[in-house]
Amino acid sequence: MNSKLVNRRDLDFVLYELLDIEQLTSRPRYADHSRETFSAALDTAEQIATDKFAPHNRKADLNEPHFDGQRVHMIPEVKEALDAFIAAGFMAAGHDYDSGGMQLPYTVVLACNGLFKAANVGTSGYPFLTMGNANLLLAHGTPDQIERYARPELAGRFFGTMCLSEPQAGSSLADIRTAAIPQADGSYRIVGNKMWISAGEHELSENIIHLVLARIQGAPAGIRGISLFIVPKFRVNADGSLGARNDVALAGLNHKMGYRGTTNCVLNFGEKGDCRAELVGQPNQGLACMFHMMNEARIGVGFGAVMLGYTGYLHALDYARNRPQGRPPGAKDPHTPQVPIVQHADIRRMLLAQKAYVEGGLALCLYAASLVDEQKTSTDEVVRREAGQLLDLLTPVVKSWPSQWCLEANSLAIQVHGGYGYTREYPVEMFYRDNRLNPIHEGTHGIQAMDLLGRKVLMDGGSGLKLLGREMHKTIVSAKAHEGLGEHATALAGALEAVAETTRILAAALAEDSQAGLANATVYLEMFGHTVMAWVWLRLALVATLGLDAGSTADADFYRGKLQACRYFFGWELPKTQPQHALLRSLDTSCLGMADAWF
Amino acid sequence: MNSKLVNRRDLDFVLYELLDIEQLTSRPRYADHSRETFSAALDTAEQIATDKFAPHNRKADLNEPHFDGQRVHMIPEVKEALDAFIAAGFMAAGHDYDSGGMQLPYTVVLACNGLFKAANVGTSGYPFLTMGNANLLLAHGTPDQIERYARPELAGRFFGTMCLSEPQAGSSLADIRTAAIPQADGSYRIVGNKMWISAGEHELSENIIHLVLARIQGAPAGIRGISLFIVPKFRVNADGSLGARNDVALAGLNHKMGYRGTTNCVLNFGEKGDCRAELVGQPNQGLACMFHMMNEARIGVGFGAVMLGYTGYLHALDYARNRPQGRPPGAKDPHTPQVPIVQHADIRRMLLAQKAYVEGGLALCLYAASLVDEQKTSTDEVVRREAGQLLDLLTPVVKSWPSQWCLEANSLAIQVHGGYGYTREYPVEMFYRDNRLNPIHEGTHGIQAMDLLGRKVLMDGGSGLKLLGREMHKTIVSAKAHEGLGEHATALAGALEAVAETTRILAAALAEDSQAGLANATVYLEMFGHTVMAWVWLRLALVATLGLDAGSTADADFYRGKLQACRYFFGWELPKTQPQHALLRSLDTSCLGMADAWF
Repeated sequence: MNSKLVNRRDLDFVLYELLDIEQLTSRPRYADHSRETFSAALDTAEQIATDKFAPHNRKADLNEPHFDGQRVHMIPEVKEALDAFIAAGFMAAGHDYDSGGMQLPYTVVLACNGLFKAANVGTSGYPFLTMGNANLLLAHGTPDQIERYARPELAGRFFGTMCLSEPQAGSSLADIRTAAIPQADGSYRIVGNKMWISAGEHELSENIIHLVLARIQGAPAGIRGISLFIVPKFRVNADGSLGARNDVALAGLNHKMGYRGTTNCVLNFGEKGDCRAELVGQPNQGLACMFHMMNEARIGVGFGAVMLGYTGYLHALDYARNRPQGRPPGAKDPHTPQVPIVQHADIRRMLLAQKAYVEGGLALCLYAASLVDEQKTSTDEVVRREAGQLLDLLTPVVKSWPSQWCLEANSLAIQVHGGYGYTREYPVEMFYRDNRLNPIHEGTHGIQAMDLLGRKVLMDGGSGLKLLGREMHKTIVSAKAHEGLGEHATALAGALEAVAETTRILAAALAEDSQAGLANATVYLEMFGHTVMAWVWLRLALVATLGLDAGSTADADFYRGKLQACRYFFGWELPKTQPQHALLRSLDTSCLGMADAWF
Repeated sequence: MNSKLVNRRDLDFVLYELLDIEQLTSRPRYADHSRETFSAALDTAEQIATDKFAPHNRKADLNEPHFDGQRVHMIPEVKEALDAFIAAGFMAAGHDYDSGGMQLPYTVVLACNGLFKAANVGTSGYPFLTMGNANLLLAHGTPDQIERYARPELAGRFFGTMCLSEPQAGSSLADIRTAAIPQADGSYRIVGNKMWISAGEHELSENIIHLVLARIQGAPAGIRGISLFIVPKFRVNADGSLGARNDVALAGLNHKMGYRGTTNCVLNFGEKGDCRAELVGQPNQGLACMFHMMNEARIGVGFGAVMLGYTGYLHALDYARNRPQGRPPGAKDPHTPQVPIVQHADIRRMLLAQKAYVEGGLALCLYAASLVDEQKTSTDEVVRREAGQLLDLLTPVVKSWPSQWCLEANSLAIQVHGGYGYTREYPVEMFYRDNRLNPIHEGTHGIQAMDLLGRKVLMDGGSGLKLLGREMHKTIVSAKAHEGLGEHATALAGALEAVAETTRILAAALAEDSQAGLANATVYLEMFGHTVMAWVWLRLALVATLGLDAGSTADADFYRGKLQACRYFFGWELPKTQPQHALLRSLDTSCLGMADAWF
């Protein structure tokens, strides 16, 4: 199948050669699985993504959902695609057999999900939000809540949302005002407005289960007073049957630059004073419940960015191989035929950069997913703990790096297409618009930076960073033993030392003055991300070297491409961190010191 | 007027304090002008842009022109705006009084045009193409052609286009096939198809004058066999009255990501064998005629990119000052009010970066425009020649740097707005989509790079580059005398030396092998552009220092902002060239050496 969603050879390379996920099948939970069952799941996902998701991607972009004041209308292909997704069991792909799931490792689930995102990120939004919602309920809900809300979600009958933001409080959750009023029966009534709610209204499912952050009356101010509630669109009776419409209403749809297939809603809760809700977990622990799912939600965003970049890259590559235009410098005889543009150095530059961004991003995200699997199912406590530490540290990078660089890949995909890429006759302009959301939602780029520098690298005495350093050092030692990788290994070792030194300087500054210390956190995030990606590329190159040494001629070109992309990353990308280190170490105050009146 | 199109104080700063365009009024051509007449033209432009262009910008984006197979339909506001533009005399703003023009310097004309672009880049497309078309006819047409075609264009009765690309030959003009068949009466018949023709069809004017590149039968292959023709939509009789419809037909409209207000057309010439055309200039000299206008066309594209970035910046600044959200690090008490986001260091970073890109870009483009004025009207032959040399050298930078960095400014403007910026309720997402065209049209980014490294820097023994070096050196010497600018002056001197050394290495490589020498030309372009912009910022800082020293307290904040933006540029942007130099000097072959099969 040449679906242009992902290079399956590359996906296999990451899953089996880099991450060796086959070893997961030795664990009891995955004992029934094998490389064959994993690949069968991926095949099914690719087939449905190709047959049901991709064909209406542009149509959904051109015909976004609209609200007539009563109902939300959207093209019928969305529901058809989701029905196929549900029928194939993907809503519960990672869940227990007992819950009707396939009990697949998270790494495989994420890889499957990625195929749907590459095919149609808008339609994919509905199930992925539902899966996150169900996972949260499985972790924090009562058995009754799981039965009445989570199970119908896993079965695809109910869809779900996450309701965090409010008009006056976007990223600042401390300032949410939605109120929860306790009732005599232990339930709550909710009053308030929520903003930016993806999939907040539609008619794709029997019910919509909103998970809503709100303040119980009298709760402390700030984030310590936030609780989590279930607010169903239709009330759910004790026996699971649907009751009356709840008092939650769509106030309007937001109209976005991209990602148009997913409704994005302003929701009013309790306009009639009768919005019934159930508390999830303990009072005032709402953020902790929500953040429990944050790593996976952020991996999902990063991976969505990767997949949009990846499909754009494959489209650009196909175009470049088939579009004749111009001749090489020094061979300008107009009587000779024009050459395919892939032969031009600058087109190769743009394709190789895309390849480095998207294939590197794929490996990064699936590595992060494998850490989730380790954290959840390793039989070794140390492995579980360390996987959690690495995951916490890397999550800001996993979310932000693809959101920045795979968006750049989409821009390069447009550029490779020239004028055609700027038209809606080709999909790359849509991928670019879709992908521009990713640096914004699920914690903006700047918030990831604060999370990384202000929390993650310094947490527990910097133990996560030290652990990452040890992991990187293992790769460096291995790479030094291979001809052709020694120079990269030395460069990575230098970059790692530079990170340590820069971090030391910033930690000291932070201890003095958190505002000054954090002022350039975004530069730190970007420097850190590129360093991590250099490590990822060196790991990929190591595995490719092993593959080449094993002598499979069929795959030789594939492996050489990996080595060349690694060379590109070390030659063209990693050096960008050098001026970033200098800037960070100087504790530059150009931005912090810019007075409002000077703009 | 707070139109959010441009900061008029800043525009005045560039025109009068940096470029001192008032001195032009000492030349006979501009003797009737004064700072007051220049400012009056700018006021009128701003007023019409605000009243007539800006209000339908979003409406035109949402209701792009459509073709029913017979006619192109568009919203009526476009014609109303253009009628106001024409009535105010802007179509001939730079032309002789004798031609009904205002005889304004090009620098002022460009600044006026920029206000319309910031207000509505789509509607602005029609007159600016017409002005370029008329200028070409004035330079190369016969008196009769000028009378029948150019004068009605300057009067706004006819509009014009440039027809270069063909479906099989986008950037490769050597491969165009459109044929011109000589007739007994000295005229020609044209047969062929043209692609990407902006403003190629509409009903905004009485007539459309296409300037078409085509090959006269039997002409040499390649660019040496291309001639330029006038092809009117309606034939024009000897007395200037309109004749029959010519045989040029709209095959279809392209549907673009942005820039939607300007029709973009596939045109068929001579389907019925009766497309009548007149030769402009000499046979086989078509490209020379067309390239005669290239510097100004490319300045126009770069300046359009600047103005889209500039208006986006002003919108982001306004949003940041009025949107309360969150609290500074270390002041997280949720009982305190939220602060305007302009107080957050990362928001200031994004605003300061935008300021550095758009205000620097404004100065760059207007400086280039002032070189056009010097080239055309200086009384000193040396000044005229040197202005032309600098202009030739800088044009690739003037076109490409704003197209890259003011697009980045638009992305940052979205990011400052958070989720709101991603919606169509705010204009910044539209500016971002509009601006993405600029690295593509009028010579792609990669083509600008080949033009700079493959032609401009080495031309005439590198005399243009040496001249630029002398100009930069003057600034360095002046800056060294000012406290606070000495460090920047030293940095610029170092950057200039680095350019010389890198250029020397690449010139040697190019002499050996043009393919290898040009392989990384895009990196050279970007390095060169950032170096030029550091010079521009140092010049701006010098002038701001003079302003501050003069002690105007009203303007002190304005000048301090300039100094801070200069500091940002030298601290955050110029150092990005360091790894670029290293890469270029290594003659890296990662991209050139990437085999097609390895992707």
